Amino acid sequence: MVEAITQESIYEPVASDLENVIAEIATIAEKAPENAPEQAKDLDEQLGHVLATPGKRVRPALTLLASRLWGQAKDHDEMPIKMATAVELLHIATLVHDDTVDHADTRRGHQTASKLWGRNVAVLIGDFVFATSAMYVCDTSNVRLVRRFAETITELARGELNEIYTAWQPSVSLEDYNQRIYDKTSSLFCTAAESGAVLGGADDAAAKNVRDYGYNIGMAYQVYDDLLDYRATSEELGKPAGHDLSEGIITLPAILAAENGASEDIISFMNAPEDARADLLPVAVEAIKKSGALDMTHQVATVYIETAVSALDGIPPSESLDSLLALAEYVQTRNY
Amino acid sequence: MVEAITQESIYEPVASDLENVIAEIATIAEKAPENAPEQAKDLDEQLGHVLATPGKRVRPALTLLASRLWGQAKDHDEMPIKMATAVELLHIATLVHDDTVDHADTRRGHQTASKLWGRNVAVLIGDFVFATSAMYVCDTSNVRLVRRFAETITELARGELNEIYTAWQPSVSLEDYNQRIYDKTSSLFCTAAESGAVLGGADDAAAKNVRDYGYNIGMAYQVYDDLLDYRATSEELGKPAGHDLSEGIITLPAILAAENGASEDIISFMNAPEDARADLLPVAVEAIKKSGALDMTHQVATVYIETAVSALDGIPPSESLDSLLALAEYVQTRNY
Repeated sequence: MVEAITQESIYEPVASDLENVIAEIATIAEKAPENAPEQAKDLDEQLGHVLATPGKRVRPALTLLASRLWGQAKDHDEMPIKMATAVELLHIATLVHDDTVDHADTRRGHQTASKLWGRNVAVLIGDFVFATSAMYVCDTSNVRLVRRFAETITELARGELNEIYTAWQPSVSLEDYNQRIYDKTSSLFCTAAESGAVLGGADDAAAKNVRDYGYNIGMAYQVYDDLLDYRATSEELGKPAGHDLSEGIITLPAILAAENGASEDIISFMNAPEDARADLLPVAVEAIKKSGALDMTHQVATVYIETAVSALDGIPPSESLDSLLALAEYVQTRNY
Repeated sequence: MVEAITQESIYEPVASDLENVIAEIATIAEKAPENAPEQAKDLDEQLGHVLATPGKRVRPALTLLASRLWGQAKDHDEMPIKMATAVELLHIATLVHDDTVDHADTRRGHQTASKLWGRNVAVLIGDFVFATSAMYVCDTSNVRLVRRFAETITELARGELNEIYTAWQPSVSLEDYNQRIYDKTSSLFCTAAESGAVLGGADDAAAKNVRDYGYNIGMAYQVYDDLLDYRATSEELGKPAGHDLSEGIITLPAILAAENGASEDIISFMNAPEDARADLLPVAVEAIKKSGALDMTHQVATVYIETAVSALDGIPPSESLDSLLALAEYVQTRNY
């Protein structure tokens, strides 16, 4: 590709509806405190803050783009907008609870709910946003989509739980890693893509193909994220290289490195007493880098991307199809 | 009434299906860790513990009883059992998050999830149970019920948030109190009753009446709870009288007492520095008791109970109707 792909160019076919999604989300904080005159301001303000946290909006864009692949859904069609709103709200709710669980103080330069108002309020604000997201899916009147949506929430929770359960376990199997990143990340990409396709008139086979695209994009997305965690400098990422490992979390680079000579350094770090970790972390990170695991991780991600692109074979040409293909390309170039 | 009403006698017409609900809930922990071989045991064990916490099962009983009022639903009918399972799961999920927010160590003699595995795990286990409850409602294929269910979750979260927001505010309006106890408690009673009626073939008007019954029973239930907090001795309740007030939470007895001469003692306690609270609490509790507010609170609850009973006027006689009427009686006699 000669020209660099930008997020804006990918979202272009659905830019207007993506604005509608963002506008819809902004109305939630205003509507929520109905009938609670005295305390209205607190919930209003806290929801408003949480809902305004800037994001990449890749999940709702996926829903909107997938809904356009068969030429049925048009600009301002209500159902894909509702579904895309639900998908983005679910993502936001997950971030609120993840930040609460992780004691994170900031997210994309914004202070987190748990930092601002305490973890108690953050748990409940997250619950509120989870439930609100489900109400938007109900607006589609499609029980199959609602059920899949609820299932996605169980998977998101299970993925986070498995990350907690496996923390500081020096050896994690590839199978467990794949399950965890499906649960944590790819599950919602699947749902975002499939629900858009269903609402855009896809038959079962076509919806399954779009879901496969979502699955593979989601897996690639998380694998790149885990790769970036080792590659990026602290300025680019806002955290030091090897941050996941420093928290006891084994991701694909460490799994592959352990099979390629870095096992001892990784295990030493994972089993070290807390006060020795700071010294051993750079040793383990260096061993992972030297093992060639980062290139192998990149290859794994590339396979996911190629599989995502293949899943769209046979879908008639359209601007939205071009965007989904460009998104596959774009995921490979992300460095934030 | 000559004979004391027991929970068992009220649940009798649906006893077999209530067993089915409990059995269904027990299967969830076994099914949840599918595809997560290594960590299966953790999620299995933690969910199993949370789901086995004994409860009064009043909400699922309400759904099952309401479904039988028109003679359509029978023993072992799938949909009311699914809905009752969803209702009980939602209640359990709420308790998990409430106990996490409140730092509670035990619940009905069982250690809480947050005490056993930390608040992080408890947040995510709660999310998992919330989402699982929503999946059970989806099994009814009734989008109206699913939407109302999701709305109930927003209300439960909002109620808990408002309790946090208003803590240590010396004056709370009756309007705010009513909204808060609707959100916290009555909302799910409404949903439990209405959904049972809908699945049992009620038309819109009849479903609304059964919902009204649920609303009033739920309000009465919480008002009695708040009354009991002042009446019960610490042996009966496991906590000292005036526990809510000791946490800075104003409920109906304090609101009514403030209008009847106890205002000064309540405000003194609420505005006191933390180290003076232990001395001022019994003074405020005594002032509330002396003001006559407990009798007035009891009268408010009685009005809710009477309104609940009236809402069932015109429903044809049946064992289930008798049980709902007995439940209204029973709520007045609870002392646990």
